[in-house]
Amino acid sequence: MDYRFASRFDGITGSAIRAIFSLLADPKIISFAGGNPSPATFPKEDLAKMAEKLISEQGDSVLQYGGTIGRASALNTVKELLAKEGYDAKDGELITLTGSSQGIEMMTKVFINPGDTVLVEAPTFLGALQTFNTYQANLVEVEMDEQGILPDALEKALAETNAKFLYTIPTFQNPTGRTLPLERRKQVYELCKKYNCIVLEDDPYMALRYEGEAVPGIKSFDPENEVVVKLLSFSKTISPGLRMGAAYANPAIIHKFNLAKQGIDVHTPNLTQDLVAEYIGAGLYEERIGKNCDLYRDKCALMFEEAQKHFPEGTKLVRPEGGMFIWAELPEEYNCTELFKTAVEAGVAYVPGTHFYAHGGHHNTLRLNFTMVSEEKIREGMARLGKVFTNAK
Amino acid sequence: MDYRFASRFDGITGSAIRAIFSLLADPKIISFAGGNPSPATFPKEDLAKMAEKLISEQGDSVLQYGGTIGRASALNTVKELLAKEGYDAKDGELITLTGSSQGIEMMTKVFINPGDTVLVEAPTFLGALQTFNTYQANLVEVEMDEQGILPDALEKALAETNAKFLYTIPTFQNPTGRTLPLERRKQVYELCKKYNCIVLEDDPYMALRYEGEAVPGIKSFDPENEVVVKLLSFSKTISPGLRMGAAYANPAIIHKFNLAKQGIDVHTPNLTQDLVAEYIGAGLYEERIGKNCDLYRDKCALMFEEAQKHFPEGTKLVRPEGGMFIWAELPEEYNCTELFKTAVEAGVAYVPGTHFYAHGGHHNTLRLNFTMVSEEKIREGMARLGKVFTNAK
Repeated sequence: MDYRFASRFDGITGSAIRAIFSLLADPKIISFAGGNPSPATFPKEDLAKMAEKLISEQGDSVLQYGGTIGRASALNTVKELLAKEGYDAKDGELITLTGSSQGIEMMTKVFINPGDTVLVEAPTFLGALQTFNTYQANLVEVEMDEQGILPDALEKALAETNAKFLYTIPTFQNPTGRTLPLERRKQVYELCKKYNCIVLEDDPYMALRYEGEAVPGIKSFDPENEVVVKLLSFSKTISPGLRMGAAYANPAIIHKFNLAKQGIDVHTPNLTQDLVAEYIGAGLYEERIGKNCDLYRDKCALMFEEAQKHFPEGTKLVRPEGGMFIWAELPEEYNCTELFKTAVEAGVAYVPGTHFYAHGGHHNTLRLNFTMVSEEKIREGMARLGKVFTNAK
Repeated sequence: MDYRFASRFDGITGSAIRAIFSLLADPKIISFAGGNPSPATFPKEDLAKMAEKLISEQGDSVLQYGGTIGRASALNTVKELLAKEGYDAKDGELITLTGSSQGIEMMTKVFINPGDTVLVEAPTFLGALQTFNTYQANLVEVEMDEQGILPDALEKALAETNAKFLYTIPTFQNPTGRTLPLERRKQVYELCKKYNCIVLEDDPYMALRYEGEAVPGIKSFDPENEVVVKLLSFSKTISPGLRMGAAYANPAIIHKFNLAKQGIDVHTPNLTQDLVAEYIGAGLYEERIGKNCDLYRDKCALMFEEAQKHFPEGTKLVRPEGGMFIWAELPEEYNCTELFKTAVEAGVAYVPGTHFYAHGGHHNTLRLNFTMVSEEKIREGMARLGKVFTNAK
């Protein structure tokens, strides 16, 4: 039989990254390639008890079909979390998601006709790039510096493209760890509003701050809830396996998300929604986040120091104040995409930076993750990696 | 701000059915409009204990990111269930879904360019129609009789349209309760193969058989696993709120589903996958299904009898051997779409049949659900409904 797949999948293979992740299971390889939180941060005992209680006491409702928009428990919890950030989210402005990246899928499905432009940071989250490609979006990269998106570059892109939305991870960005300063956030909001371009603000790492002051979201400049669609994730603060997230946006957009989600999964499982609500409602969330930060802080600092020590002269590094990643830009002559094979042979893995660019290139960059590895392995792995680069010269 | 939504949402409002379902909360109305299983069938105590155990003992893995294709626990369970139906599903031929209707979304995303044809039963599941519309499919209805799809009508549609796939619910169909006989299943397979048209076989009601002999799936004629994509649901046999389903198809199709699902939700929550696997692995599944059938059997028979007793002369009814619905085709002069308001005023609700047709019309039809109501309410509600129709004459 001749399978006539839709043209939106032309050229989408997903194989490069999958090949990398399949290596992570080999215990001989020290992997900095992942993007997982440490299982040591998972509140197993609390969630186990809560799941038992929720199903046995509220099973008639937990196990039944639910509304597409989400459980009252979860929506109220999200409202309260948003209130702590100064947001006054109302009914009809929220929807729960089966993981916050579902919000990227829905945003694209709801707004993008083939050929429509999405502005993306260069580099950015590769899962988002793949989603945009499956809707045949025209991807236009916005240049960044060490602090994130450059407002001038953004205005140029907006003026030239009639883009429908900008996708941005403003805090401890994936893959660069960069955080956009407050003044630029305001500029991003104002420029996008001026050019009728929505801002899709994805902030899953925001809570993982190890030092410095929290920066209000781009959403904070949008009290009319008009320009910014804000995604909330619980994957890095409670558990990614529960797949629970939410979106906060204008009611007209949430209404379309609701229609899109009816096909995607009807609704997010009630049990995972209620578990997140129950856990946060029990007052365990902030304390847990503090402990997670304590666990990650030293690893982040250590990996940064080891990169400074072992990576070639001329390597550009930005020390992140939080998140899960260290980004390195080596001198032009290093090809981290080709050196990946050598690194794996030397027993260490990373993600070549090229995968995070909408149009590839940038082979002298790489992303390193520190949340899943011990300090001992960070030392050993970074030394191995330094040797790979030294030998490559 | 001017929201420039994608054209795929033009004309999609979802409001007609939502308005109906919002009435279900009113305790004064006897609702035959739903499509929910009875909460009395939910295995609350078993699932509560299993959830507690899974999270506390395997939390490092249950709460972590998982693979898009699904948990080994769930995939193996699905394999074993398929083996009982005579299917030899191999690795790479299965993927877990966040509810089986996610398989309809993925099938459409993976195969349909705007304007491509999907063949649908007339009438069919309205959620599927909405999904097809959000991908701008050209929907072509295939005529049915009391036993389901008419092979001659199918061949005519195949010859005329170059359709990419046929969507069919062969057993206790939603909304009609009809079951396609074995010989016709074979014909559906052969015709679709001849015309290079995939069969999307959605069978969520299959296990709810109250009488008669089980009929092998259309998939049973496809040992090469080439033509038929089979969806499996646990919503009507364990719990819909867990949102757990699976797809069984050719590896080339599963590969594309995997890519599509990475954007949709990365993976189905591990906890709900493991819960379904654990529950079935404990040997509780068949026994539970038997009890569910015992609960529904008499309600189904009663509602059918009451329809025969109270509905106008000339009403066409088919007694279903299972499932959740009774379908009625009243004489042409009755407009069930308009009479819906009168019925609600009389304290009884149904779904007007027109919503289940890709192109509307058929206003003399309606769908009734019996799983959520007591026998007493079935008697009272059907009498009320009979009066609405009598008065309308």
